[in-house]
This record gives sequence, structure tokens and C-alpha cells, in this order.
Amino acid sequence: MGVRFSIRARDGAARTGRLETAHGTVRTPAFMPVGTAGTVKGMTPEAVAVAGADIVLANTYHLMLRPGEETVEKLGGLHRFMNWKGPILTDSGGYQVMSLAERRTVAEDGVVFRSHIDGTRHALTPERAVGIQHNLGSDVTMVLDECTTFPATVDEAADSMRLSMRWAARSKAAFRDRPGHGLFGIVQGGVHGDLRRESAGMLIDIGFDGYAVGGLAIGEGQETTFGVLDETVPSLPADAPRYLMGVGTPSDIVGAVQRGIDMFDCVIPTRSGRTGRGYTGAGTINIRNARHADDPSPVDADCPCPACAGYSRAYLHHLFRAKEMLGPILLTTHNVHHYQRLMAGLREAIEAGTLAEFAAS
Amino acid sequence: MGVRFSIRARDGAARTGRLETAHGTVRTPAFMPVGTAGTVKGMTPEAVAVAGADIVLANTYHLMLRPGEETVEKLGGLHRFMNWKGPILTDSGGYQVMSLAERRTVAEDGVVFRSHIDGTRHALTPERAVGIQHNLGSDVTMVLDECTTFPATVDEAADSMRLSMRWAARSKAAFRDRPGHGLFGIVQGGVHGDLRRESAGMLIDIGFDGYAVGGLAIGEGQETTFGVLDETVPSLPADAPRYLMGVGTPSDIVGAVQRGIDMFDCVIPTRSGRTGRGYTGAGTINIRNARHADDPSPVDADCPCPACAGYSRAYLHHLFRAKEMLGPILLTTHNVHHYQRLMAGLREAIEAGTLAEFAAS
Repeated sequence: MGVRFSIRARDGAARTGRLETAHGTVRTPAFMPVGTAGTVKGMTPEAVAVAGADIVLANTYHLMLRPGEETVEKLGGLHRFMNWKGPILTDSGGYQVMSLAERRTVAEDGVVFRSHIDGTRHALTPERAVGIQHNLGSDVTMVLDECTTFPATVDEAADSMRLSMRWAARSKAAFRDRPGHGLFGIVQGGVHGDLRRESAGMLIDIGFDGYAVGGLAIGEGQETTFGVLDETVPSLPADAPRYLMGVGTPSDIVGAVQRGIDMFDCVIPTRSGRTGRGYTGAGTINIRNARHADDPSPVDADCPCPACAGYSRAYLHHLFRAKEMLGPILLTTHNVHHYQRLMAGLREAIEAGTLAEFAAS
Repeated sequence: MGVRFSIRARDGAARTGRLETAHGTVRTPAFMPVGTAGTVKGMTPEAVAVAGADIVLANTYHLMLRPGEETVEKLGGLHRFMNWKGPILTDSGGYQVMSLAERRTVAEDGVVFRSHIDGTRHALTPERAVGIQHNLGSDVTMVLDECTTFPATVDEAADSMRLSMRWAARSKAAFRDRPGHGLFGIVQGGVHGDLRRESAGMLIDIGFDGYAVGGLAIGEGQETTFGVLDETVPSLPADAPRYLMGVGTPSDIVGAVQRGIDMFDCVIPTRSGRTGRGYTGAGTINIRNARHADDPSPVDADCPCPACAGYSRAYLHHLFRAKEMLGPILLTTHNVHHYQRLMAGLREAIEAGTLAEFAAS
């Protein structure tokens, strides 16, 4: 039952492995492009697969509000709805309720909020969040958590974490275990190592298919993130997948993989692609910058992606200046390829035992 | 020299043939997707080719203003710039100066105007319009014409047409004839048959690789368009390609093909794709309409395009409601396929001698 995770090689704390789900295998360390509303913005699912992504993320919060999880279920589930044949991980909605919804009220039972789209009133409980993800057909379901605000006092962080742990137990009880479908718990506790360890212990007692580290993509900085991972990851089961939610830059990802993280999601490659920021081996470029106006070279000369194979920086600059859709399409495609190539490089380096050299380069 | 046109079959006034250019062969009747600023909005060039388009149209006016034709030339020409390997026809800018530019002044020498983008002052003469199209590397260059306003008195239409004919002669003199590159004249004369015939005769005397019918996509209605074609086409050379500029709906195209037109361009399939209008064998649908919210069927069940093969109306409805880029991408893709399948059907029907039945269906 659940999803199966096997580790093929280790290099220090880092691991490379395979997560097997009902819709296929995820090579880890894995980066999940974000398909918030059932689409990775600016890309067809075929293009996402060509970029090398094994799994995408979608959001319970967005899909429950529009088009509604029952509509998705009636249409054959999220995989068919969005025409993505691989695995899908769905976020539970906890983070989005905090960051997007209006007039939210958190109580023991769950959270009540108003939709940011039309102001309608909705409730999300641990049981309902799991039920929605069942209806969507998620391969990996996330427990509902309360995303602790940052900064928070230690008491606030402790109260919030313990509420999330009670919700995690209820999520587990509500989860319908089936082969190829897994449920991940989420470690909370803010920047406090003792709370993080307490949270990890409580989740292990409940028992999950994987363990996420939450609450670390809200502006606390890389040093803090790595510090929390150093305090948290050793407390997590050695043989279960570990997922750092909402992180991050290529440098964040490399550091987190070195600390034993297996899975990531982040809007950076797609959002940057829409705003004109392109990732290269030598850092990022702003394609709108006038210095690219005559540049015949691609975004990244070392990148084999379709955008770099066919188009110059000058052309992308022109497309962004002219507000043509193809600009965001091509730059998003490149950025998603860039991230997937990073993950492939990390997997190879771990397998070869050369992660330190890879990270240094 | 020039481009070569060969007619393979006729059915009444309709013909099917091949236009051979430096960048490949165009099967006629042909529909050219519009790539105004060097991109067919919302589609990669690969997707445009997959849809069955042999040739695309780009605009001199837009490209001279941004990024500038010298930039395009330095970057290897428009084909390389936009990564489209097939033929390109470029409009001369006459129509866009009329419809988009500000404070334009038409004189014998040419037109002076201010850019709609940044208000800068520009001049377009017949010689400069041809020179820009040389720099872009167009396979088919259009002469600069003055697009007669509609409605116009017969005297206004006559004066405007004769100015365009003098510009056509200057365009011909400026055109550098090379194998695979052609220059098309544009018949003007408003809705007046005698002026249209006079214009056609003057163009034939100058001598062009093809003959366009201009000034008919500005709100005059299908009956008027067909009437002008009935008065004009018989005056055009039997063995040269004929291009009806800026037209139109599927029904416009069928009627014009029946009247002997070989080439078309129009923003309808791409613009409709962005605004939510989808073409089907049974008319158009507005994908934003609530009745599509739960519909598991594709936009057109008879369409083999990637959008119809992979996605439901319900999903496209969701994407448009959520303002996701993939909505316009998929619906544009479908509409361009729909138009190209119409053209393929017309070509087959002419070859089979069954155009009347095809048109009736």
C-alpha cells in the first residue's frame, strides 16, 4: 500500500532514489514544477515531460475553489483533466489559505475562509483536505497544516505546530490507503530546532509515506532554512522520502539535497519565465535588459532545451518588449529545463559519489 | 527568377496548385497564420507547422518599429529570428499605417506617421517598404499601397487607387529580383468594379509574381467582398497566384476560393483563440460560456489536433476562467488546425472536382 521509495545511492547525507506511484516513477532528488490550477503556467504537459519532470504539483486550495474538486472528479480526475500522465502531488491548501484567502479563522476543527476569487465562504478541515485530494486523484496527498506565520514567538510556533500535528493525525485517519497513493506529513515548528524535532517525532509516531518540511519558503533566508534542515532531517526516517516545500533557488536546492532532501517544488522557474528572468549556468539574466537586444546567442549556450536550440536572446527580448505570449512560453520552458537538468546533475553526482565537486561548481 | 506558381487542378473558377519559394513550397489554396511581430501569437513555429501551415505572414510596419529591420537582418533575417523554416510573406505596412499609426500624412512620395508604440516619427515610401522586406528576407514581398478608407466616394477611391498604382510601379523598380523571392501587386479601387478592373490592368502592365486584392477586410460585408471578387478576379492573369488580404471567416474563404482566390491571411483563428472563441464543424463556440463547465468532450470531436486530442471543453473553460496562458495556447492551436484542415479540404475537393459539394457541407 502507499507509495514505495527505494534509495539507490548515498553521498554524505544526500540520497538518490525512486518513488513509485500509481502514475509512474519519480527519480529523486526531484523538482516538481508547480501547476497551481491544474496547469504549469505557459507550458503544455508534453513540454513539461520533455523538460524531464517526472511529477508536478497542483493545489487543493485553487482547485477546490475553481473548477471544484467534484467537477474534476466527474471529468475523470486531475490527471485526465490536465492531460498529465505522470504522478501528481497535491498541496493540502494550508499554505494558500494563509497566503491568499481572506478573513480566515483557524480553530481546532479546521480553517474557515473566504475565497480570494469571489469572496464565497469555505471551510477546510483535515478530513476535507484529504477528501478533496482523493477526488482529484492525487498520487501524493499532503496533510492539512497550519502554516505558522513568520516571524513567530516560540509559544506561537509551538501552538501552531501542535495544532498541525493533531490535524496530521486526523488526516492520516481520513486517508484511504491504496497502492501507489501516499500521504505525506509536514514537519512544522518554525525556526526552533526543538519544536521541529518534536514535530518530526509526532509525525513518525503517526506514520506517513513521506515527510515534508514546511514553513520555510516565507522569507526566512537560506541560512535559516539550512539551519532548520540541519536540526530536522536527522530526526526523519532514513528510508522515507523527504520533501522541502516551496523551495527554492538552485543554490537552495543543492544545499538542501546535501542535507538529505529528496523532493522540491517552487514557482521560481515558471514565475521567472513569465517576468523575464532566465536561469543560466552563470546566474540569472533579465531578458528585458537592453543589452540583450542584439544578442544572437541563446539564453544559455550550454542548454539543450528547445528554447535555447531555436531562439536568440535578441528574439526573446523582442517578444517580451512586444508583450508576445511566446516570450513567457519560451523562457518558462528554458527555466523548467534548467531546473530539471540541475536535478539530473544532482542525481548523477550522488550516484557517482561526486556531490561535493558538483555543488562547488 | 521570382516565385513559381503551378496550377494542378481546377474546379470552376477555383484552382489548387503550388507556389514555390526560396524557403519551400506552399500548397494552394493556402491560409497564412498571422505572425504580426514575428510570432504567431500563442504558438511555437513547430506547432504552426504541425497544424499544416506552409507559410506565415509577418508585418513590415510592426517589425520596422520593433525590433527594427536592421536588427532582424543582423540576426540573420526573419526566418532565423523567429525560427520559422518555411516561406514568409510580409505585408508592406500600408494597412497598418492606416489602422494603427498616429498622425499619418499621405503624399505622393509616401506616408509619414508616428509610431503607435512610442510616438516616434517614421516615413514609409514604396522603396523603403520594399527595402525593409529585403532586409527581413521575405519570400513574398508586398508593394506599399494606400489602403482606401471605407466608405469612400468614387473619386476618393479612384485617387487613392491611382496613387497606389504609382507606388506599385515604384515598388517594382525597387524590388531586387532573386530566385524564390517574389513581389505581389495589390488591386485597389474600393467597391467599384471599374476601378478594380483599371487597377488590375495597371498592375498587369507593370508585371508581378502575384496579385492581391486589397481593401476588403474593413467591414464591408461578405456580399460586397464576393461582388468585388466577381468584378476583379476575371481581370487577373490566369496563371498567377491571387491573394485576398485580411479575409476572413471559413465561409468567406470558401466563397473566395470558389471565385478563384489562392491565398488568404487573417487574424481570426489566432485572435479568436485568445478571446475564447473556438471553431467547429458546426459553427463557433464561446468556451467561456457556463454550459462548457462540465463538458468532457473536446472543442470539436471531429478534430485531430493536439488540443482536441488531449483536452476537454471543461478544461479549456477552466483555463480561460482562471486566466491561464494554456487556454489561449490550446484554443489558438485548435483554431489554426481548423483553418488548415479547411484549406486541405478545399485543395482535395478541387483536385477531386467536388468543390460544390464541399462548399455546400
